[in-house]
Amino acid sequence: MTLLGLDIGGTKLAAGVATIQGQVLARRRAPAWSARGPDAMITDLLAMARTAVAESGTRPAVVGVSIGGPLDPERGMIIGPPGLPGWNGVPLRDILERALGLPVAIDNDANAAAVAEWCWGHGQGLDNLLYVTVSTGVGGGVIVNSHLLRGVGCGAGEIGHMLVRPNGSVCACGGRGCLEAEASGTAIARKAREALLGYTREASRLWDLCGGQPETVTARHVSQAAREGDLLAASIWEDALDALATGLTNAICTLAPQRVIVGGGVASAGDIFFKPLRQLVAERVHIVPVYAIGIVPSAFGADHAGLMGAFAVALERL
Amino acid sequence: MTLLGLDIGGTKLAAGVATIQGQVLARRRAPAWSARGPDAMITDLLAMARTAVAESGTRPAVVGVSIGGPLDPERGMIIGPPGLPGWNGVPLRDILERALGLPVAIDNDANAAAVAEWCWGHGQGLDNLLYVTVSTGVGGGVIVNSHLLRGVGCGAGEIGHMLVRPNGSVCACGGRGCLEAEASGTAIARKAREALLGYTREASRLWDLCGGQPETVTARHVSQAAREGDLLAASIWEDALDALATGLTNAICTLAPQRVIVGGGVASAGDIFFKPLRQLVAERVHIVPVYAIGIVPSAFGADHAGLMGAFAVALERL
Repeated sequence: MTLLGLDIGGTKLAAGVATIQGQVLARRRAPAWSARGPDAMITDLLAMARTAVAESGTRPAVVGVSIGGPLDPERGMIIGPPGLPGWNGVPLRDILERALGLPVAIDNDANAAAVAEWCWGHGQGLDNLLYVTVSTGVGGGVIVNSHLLRGVGCGAGEIGHMLVRPNGSVCACGGRGCLEAEASGTAIARKAREALLGYTREASRLWDLCGGQPETVTARHVSQAAREGDLLAASIWEDALDALATGLTNAICTLAPQRVIVGGGVASAGDIFFKPLRQLVAERVHIVPVYAIGIVPSAFGADHAGLMGAFAVALERL
Repeated sequence: MTLLGLDIGGTKLAAGVATIQGQVLARRRAPAWSARGPDAMITDLLAMARTAVAESGTRPAVVGVSIGGPLDPERGMIIGPPGLPGWNGVPLRDILERALGLPVAIDNDANAAAVAEWCWGHGQGLDNLLYVTVSTGVGGGVIVNSHLLRGVGCGAGEIGHMLVRPNGSVCACGGRGCLEAEASGTAIARKAREALLGYTREASRLWDLCGGQPETVTARHVSQAAREGDLLAASIWEDALDALATGLTNAICTLAPQRVIVGGGVASAGDIFFKPLRQLVAERVHIVPVYAIGIVPSAFGADHAGLMGAFAVALERL
């Protein structure tokens, strides 16, 4: 018995086949070129899926899809994810069921990754955990009493839209001071870009890293320059971690999870991300026994979490 | 079959007998005089309990206790609640079981009130709800998938210690800018007291309400003066509601509950509390369908919620 997983992101597509123990038998990845819209992307994805299935030498029993929300998992419908132009209203489950002749389940990427950590990663054996992804946006998935918490309108775990900075930056959601607007990779890059214009080339290493083109600065450039001791980059990085620590403090006070697992590209910076984050959270959480709550990286890494999430969605459907 | 409920607060004690449908057959209330410490309070409480049991004409099967946390419900042990001097380490469950000859369960007041709302109040029939009490402190109880969420160290629902104001007021927990330090009745009274010293008697109605003695100002004085149009009181009141709205925004983004029930003495101010609170939360929550989440008062009122919570703890034990 195997699972077919499909991961649809704004920048990459992935398809793979895994056992129900989470062992990956075959996988394919390709750039998403999301500006092409859903039809071309789904065509590519189906071709990748068929190749992976053939390579696995198995016949998957069920298909799971991990894709950016918002979406309606009950109806299998996509609802205008910001990173995927043209996807609003696409009945993705029905399309894939017709094309593949298999039962399909879809879920948003953060929920999917939370379940994957719980099944096969750093959440194994736990009843309550919080998964957070810090990437283009900031998302979350909540496992309570060994079940994924969906909440009204599937809104549970939307910790990226906690208000962590009164009068802070404007967020894509329409709010202001949201965690996502202060600490996502996009927010870090935006703040670096804006700040760079006030710095000479000699004053910040970021100028070199972006090849003299501030519009190409990424969160990865910021973490790298911060690691090398650049003061501007360090202040932007610390500011984002400060906002993230407030968000985690608030989620911990609400849920008191056994573990907080942090994935996504920004978290893949490693120690320069986790060490200050753990310290800030420990300084801010007093009433919940924070020493008993580990803040740990994803078991799968930013590149692989989406596909593992897709397998977890398939396993849940099973 | 009936339930014996015991409510232990910093200012009042209550004991009562109810059916498992939540119908109250008898009850007694008395001031707590908490400075006397646990022995004298427990003696009073047992006398009140025996009177209530006799009046009910029933023999309760089980006892539930609602008391300020932190505490350990598994061991039935109190752990230094701020409003109850001398209670740290009191093995309350064992003491009461010996005295009453009945099985006893204890839980913190916010958890107890959350379960009471779910059993008999404004949370009936819901799977997921958040109960918040805004009183001397700010506490919360979370029901998820029809179960009370306890979390690590029974820390779930501690929304009073969310960080809602970076660099805000110092909190009793050791933190800074906690919701409790910005929006509890104690915080509202403190801010009014401090502000009054800068106002002449003619400039604020609060001077009259507190009889010219700023040290006696209460949150109730503030809500009353705000209702009468006093500008100082209105600004303190709005500031507290602003902090509370941020806390609820963050809890809603994490849990997406079907309903938020707000109890406690501060919430009993009524429309002047709920109307602006609902509006502020609606302005701040964008990604979760907040229109589907009611923010409603407790079904029991601030005076009665503690005892109903105690009955709910008894019912859970059953």
